[in-house]
Amino acid sequence: MAETKSSKKKSIEVLTDLGEGIYSQIIKGENPYFTLPTRGISNIKYSEEKRMVTLGEGLSRRYFLNVGHVRKFIQTVAMAALSKELIESGKHTSLRSAFYQIRRTIPGTKIDVVDDQIETNKAIEDLEVITDLTREQLNINANKAGAVAGEVIVEDRNDIIDWSKMGSGGWAIPSNVEDLAFKKVDAKFVIYMEKQTIWDRLNEDKAWKKLGCVIIASQGQATRGIRRLLQRLYQEHDLPVYILTDFDPWGFYIYSAIKFGSIALAHAAEKLALPEARFMGLLADDIERYGLKRHLIKFKEVDQSRLQQMKKYDWFKNNKDWTAEFEKMEKLNAKVELDAFTAKGLSFMTEQYLPDKIKEKKFLD
Amino acid sequence: MAETKSSKKKSIEVLTDLGEGIYSQIIKGENPYFTLPTRGISNIKYSEEKRMVTLGEGLSRRYFLNVGHVRKFIQTVAMAALSKELIESGKHTSLRSAFYQIRRTIPGTKIDVVDDQIETNKAIEDLEVITDLTREQLNINANKAGAVAGEVIVEDRNDIIDWSKMGSGGWAIPSNVEDLAFKKVDAKFVIYMEKQTIWDRLNEDKAWKKLGCVIIASQGQATRGIRRLLQRLYQEHDLPVYILTDFDPWGFYIYSAIKFGSIALAHAAEKLALPEARFMGLLADDIERYGLKRHLIKFKEVDQSRLQQMKKYDWFKNNKDWTAEFEKMEKLNAKVELDAFTAKGLSFMTEQYLPDKIKEKKFLD
Repeated sequence: MAETKSSKKKSIEVLTDLGEGIYSQIIKGENPYFTLPTRGISNIKYSEEKRMVTLGEGLSRRYFLNVGHVRKFIQTVAMAALSKELIESGKHTSLRSAFYQIRRTIPGTKIDVVDDQIETNKAIEDLEVITDLTREQLNINANKAGAVAGEVIVEDRNDIIDWSKMGSGGWAIPSNVEDLAFKKVDAKFVIYMEKQTIWDRLNEDKAWKKLGCVIIASQGQATRGIRRLLQRLYQEHDLPVYILTDFDPWGFYIYSAIKFGSIALAHAAEKLALPEARFMGLLADDIERYGLKRHLIKFKEVDQSRLQQMKKYDWFKNNKDWTAEFEKMEKLNAKVELDAFTAKGLSFMTEQYLPDKIKEKKFLD
Repeated sequence: MAETKSSKKKSIEVLTDLGEGIYSQIIKGENPYFTLPTRGISNIKYSEEKRMVTLGEGLSRRYFLNVGHVRKFIQTVAMAALSKELIESGKHTSLRSAFYQIRRTIPGTKIDVVDDQIETNKAIEDLEVITDLTREQLNINANKAGAVAGEVIVEDRNDIIDWSKMGSGGWAIPSNVEDLAFKKVDAKFVIYMEKQTIWDRLNEDKAWKKLGCVIIASQGQATRGIRRLLQRLYQEHDLPVYILTDFDPWGFYIYSAIKFGSIALAHAAEKLALPEARFMGLLADDIERYGLKRHLIKFKEVDQSRLQQMKKYDWFKNNKDWTAEFEKMEKLNAKVELDAFTAKGLSFMTEQYLPDKIKEKKFLD
């Protein structure tokens, strides 16, 4: 759902309710508190039902009149006030700037509200789980990276942006895509890839036009902006999302994090994870099929140990297809990069590999 | 100069000449060779005249019939052939893909043309200095990153792209800007900044419109695509280029690398360095003036030692202004981030700091 006027209004309402709740506790002479899910590692788990890494049932209360809580309580309230201000003025800030904006000495004391950005980062996460709003909905943006191309037209800050007319660069994906309105979506699916150079190649081939898809890349892990964009394209426009990476544990992990989320983002899993994403990257069988054997790159110890960790993940260990894939990789003791396809011709991916995958629906899930 | 048809033609001519030169040496029964500048550290120096880190006068010859040279000779010739193919077909590749494209076993032997990307990277650098063409002109692209906004219209791959209508994302800067044609440039100067979050802030304020400038950011060091874009905006449209970074040795180094180049890029200095760039980032005096003292961040040892290295650079050590700045920083033993301005209001940079700098022309050179 786009951040329309009503979603802006909703955010303000939620923050106002939070403030009024605390105010009424004070008026009644109570010790003000709020309730929030515990975010410690013991309360983070993989949910079979939701198919994502998310917070468990554990709840905790944070009190104002508690020496151990008061600092965090005040920081969270300060952050809520800042967010409300931001939303009302239509401006956005970053994690780093939010720290500077909150930083001040409490009048009449020598105590600073915050000393370190770690505190404001935590306060923002607290606020996310208390309000069930994302950072982006609270107008606190993450770093941006990445580019997109395809037959899609969006409206953003009153500009009409046609993703099919962005030359060799593509449109730079914003840190915050809540405000985007989709005007036209003429695509059958989305490909997210881990490497800008692969994106460049596919964009030069106009693969998005030939295959009827949207192509997106950042560099390595997807940014929050990209995750939300993938999620919106899936949820609002029914576009299947495919993840295109190397045949290596690091590529598999990029897929894993987009699909199932991660420990660091467990508190925002439902806003960022995409359990319906599927893997269209290189598989062990593709190595034989496409004659990539000479391009096997022998594992270093760090690759093998990353693979061993991955095998143990709750969301992989009972999955037959992935278990089989991991075993083949372990046996090969080697990885293969997507770039190796260029040995077969610069447009081999556009003309052969991707059409094969799509035609045969050879996606791991 | 844009890569027009004539520049494409020129590249092909240069590569053809190279091939014909070798061919005629063979016909005459000579030992084929080419001459190229030595790229070892002993031949890299700061040129006072050019104001950049560049290669000295040292030359060396690389022979085909020389056991120590033959491998590199063949790799460079293979890369020249690949480049010619790329230019003729209008396609681009990456460093990584170029490696896979060159990789093959010499028929009738068990010898591979290349074993490792390090070899093809070197061959590409060789080709750059032999032909006086950049990687980009040889159709071998670097990684892309970064975004741009401003009152500029370009044509790229037949798309007309208006940098003032790119919403919150901006146009993603391509890895290769040789092909860009500027259709309209309505700006008085360019600001390159080291942080995407600062760019986001300025873009949200439409600072580029208010100040009449182009704003560009990647994350940290500028990519090759961005360097060339800055250079083209300066050389073809007379736009002064200002570098906006934190008050810290790392920010100063980002400025230094854009302006004077670096050891790693010495062989391409004249295509990438921009001696006319000026520093509009935070200076010691700004800390006092804008009341940023409470936001000083104490140096770690690594910051102080980076500063000490920087003081010794040939291009800084005889520069009074920079020497004074380094001394103030050393004494403060602390850095300040641009983000700290948000403590004074989210739009402080757009409304106060940048207009002050521009009005007072307070740029270090």
